[in-house]
Amino acid sequence: MPTSSQSYPMSGGEDQHSYIHNSSYQKAAVDGIEEKTRQYILEKIDLLNLNPDLSTFTIADFGCSIGPNTFHAVQNIIDAVKRKHLKESQENSLVFLEFQVYFNDQPNNDFNTLFRSQPPSSQQEYFSVVGVPGSFYGRVLPRNSIHIGYTSYTTHWLSKVPEHVCDKKSPAWNKSYIQCNNLIEEVTKAYKVQFTKDMSVFLKARAEELVPGGLMIALGQCLPDGVPMYETWSCIVKDTIGDCLLDMAISGLTTIEKIELFNLPVYFPEFSELKGAIEQNGSFTIEMMETEDHPLEAMQLTNDFITSMFRAIFSKVIEEHFGNGVVDELFDKLAKKLSKQPIDFEKCKKQMVYYIVFKRK
Amino acid sequence: MPTSSQSYPMSGGEDQHSYIHNSSYQKAAVDGIEEKTRQYILEKIDLLNLNPDLSTFTIADFGCSIGPNTFHAVQNIIDAVKRKHLKESQENSLVFLEFQVYFNDQPNNDFNTLFRSQPPSSQQEYFSVVGVPGSFYGRVLPRNSIHIGYTSYTTHWLSKVPEHVCDKKSPAWNKSYIQCNNLIEEVTKAYKVQFTKDMSVFLKARAEELVPGGLMIALGQCLPDGVPMYETWSCIVKDTIGDCLLDMAISGLTTIEKIELFNLPVYFPEFSELKGAIEQNGSFTIEMMETEDHPLEAMQLTNDFITSMFRAIFSKVIEEHFGNGVVDELFDKLAKKLSKQPIDFEKCKKQMVYYIVFKRK
Repeated sequence: MPTSSQSYPMSGGEDQHSYIHNSSYQKAAVDGIEEKTRQYILEKIDLLNLNPDLSTFTIADFGCSIGPNTFHAVQNIIDAVKRKHLKESQENSLVFLEFQVYFNDQPNNDFNTLFRSQPPSSQQEYFSVVGVPGSFYGRVLPRNSIHIGYTSYTTHWLSKVPEHVCDKKSPAWNKSYIQCNNLIEEVTKAYKVQFTKDMSVFLKARAEELVPGGLMIALGQCLPDGVPMYETWSCIVKDTIGDCLLDMAISGLTTIEKIELFNLPVYFPEFSELKGAIEQNGSFTIEMMETEDHPLEAMQLTNDFITSMFRAIFSKVIEEHFGNGVVDELFDKLAKKLSKQPIDFEKCKKQMVYYIVFKRK
Repeated sequence: MPTSSQSYPMSGGEDQHSYIHNSSYQKAAVDGIEEKTRQYILEKIDLLNLNPDLSTFTIADFGCSIGPNTFHAVQNIIDAVKRKHLKESQENSLVFLEFQVYFNDQPNNDFNTLFRSQPPSSQQEYFSVVGVPGSFYGRVLPRNSIHIGYTSYTTHWLSKVPEHVCDKKSPAWNKSYIQCNNLIEEVTKAYKVQFTKDMSVFLKARAEELVPGGLMIALGQCLPDGVPMYETWSCIVKDTIGDCLLDMAISGLTTIEKIELFNLPVYFPEFSELKGAIEQNGSFTIEMMETEDHPLEAMQLTNDFITSMFRAIFSKVIEEHFGNGVVDELFDKLAKKLSKQPIDFEKCKKQMVYYIVFKRK
């Protein structure tokens, strides 16, 4: 049963502000690990051991959003499994393999757009496409039903904003900051606790859903050990969004009180922290765990690109709190602020892309 | 892989014209067979024989639309299976049962509304809710994956309008009628051929998806043998919709040519015809097949009720052909025409609700 949690999907639909048209940053990271994923599946997955009578191979993307990245990622996994199946079939007589792909996201994700934007039938190698509405911080699929689970750029979304960070009387009060930027130790601690708790719930649920021997592939963003969030460019952008909100409070478009009650439910862990969270769950063996630079990290991202990307990601959560009609003005302001004070990428510390493969014991 | 077919979902969303708020006629039929379904499952399903290690019981609703009827029907099936499971568990040690429910409909069905209108978590007995976009005239789920399939008020929707009925040069030309009203023999024949073909594809796909011993429960509307469509009240309503379109052509809101190119892709078979179609597929045994009166058949349906119901069902297919902005005017006209010339229910012949349970050999 999906557990209740706060839920802020990426921008739906297919217009200029939609996630569909503003997710190339995430896609670059997904593309970056495609070859590695294929190789890993080819070398390490043992179909015969999974089940010699296996006729349906099941794949789940947890937190798939609305495409197109999920379709690329899933296709890549299917291609690799098909090659592996072909190879193993030459030695053992395996049955013909069909694929079933579960696309999971929050119930208020735009599944209509996801389903309508799926690649046309002739290009689809997989047979059965299914949508699974529900928070991945809880079980969404039957026990022992998934052979490969996948999740990309998702686990930094917490199930909720940690308590106390919006409470003026708490030492973990985040003042008028709208994110965990690592400037206030107690705030960082509160976010850490929530992240650890959420990761534990996430992994427990996946451990139940994956078959023994099944794989979980996860990628996303993390901080190198010892690098505080506030030294990264994406933190600067989010703090700038906070500044724009303060400007809007001054012009009466929102209030300071409202801003003080708002925090983004996102947290980027340090690499060792992430590793610790996975190791703590005893149901998996970590098969591979590494970080690399984001493929676009070396590039000077344009202000337009940054504004559109952050709008597609955060407009829903902002709208939910500040009401309709704030988003246009806010991101106009962000674009202007960024063009007046461009981000000095050379001075920023890099965030990293983490890539983990873990196997269900 | 979903096959391509014409696809006209029920009216989405949750406004006054939505299917959600205008599907009580169909619900009455679903309610009418609930007790029978529970009894049948309790008496006849053999969980031990299906699979003694069964831990996930799978149910699929083919052509589920957007609720709430699908949730009622599925809950009823789950309740019965749970009771049966409890009973069998006392004699044999069966494992704890989880449920997975596949909600199937065309990719342009409003799955967002379906997912958002599902009963809240605490009321949900089933664990995993899954949406399956794709035409049921083709495979949509893996082989041997479903224990109970269900379909309600769906199979009268053909995969397409039969060829020739819109072709002026064909003997099967349906003139300016917009449906198969049984007034032109060649038209009836063309619709019959399409229906038989579609049912064959439907049953072939379900035969592959159901596990041996799995059940398929189907209900819908049919004609008693020997009763022509034009003697039923629902045919009169559709012919009246056709008349309204002709009126609109006279006032220039559409054209005769456009009307002549339009036919509803729906066909209600006679009971024996439906039986023949199922018997022709050799993969099932018919366990129960009966007809009964529709629970609302004896009531004088109000013109408002009729207009709203037909609008929720047919507005998409009409909009697709005649363009936006026709629907409001058309159903206003229908309401007026019906109030001037009310349907004389006593003079009409009854359509019947059919209820079939067939078992995968």
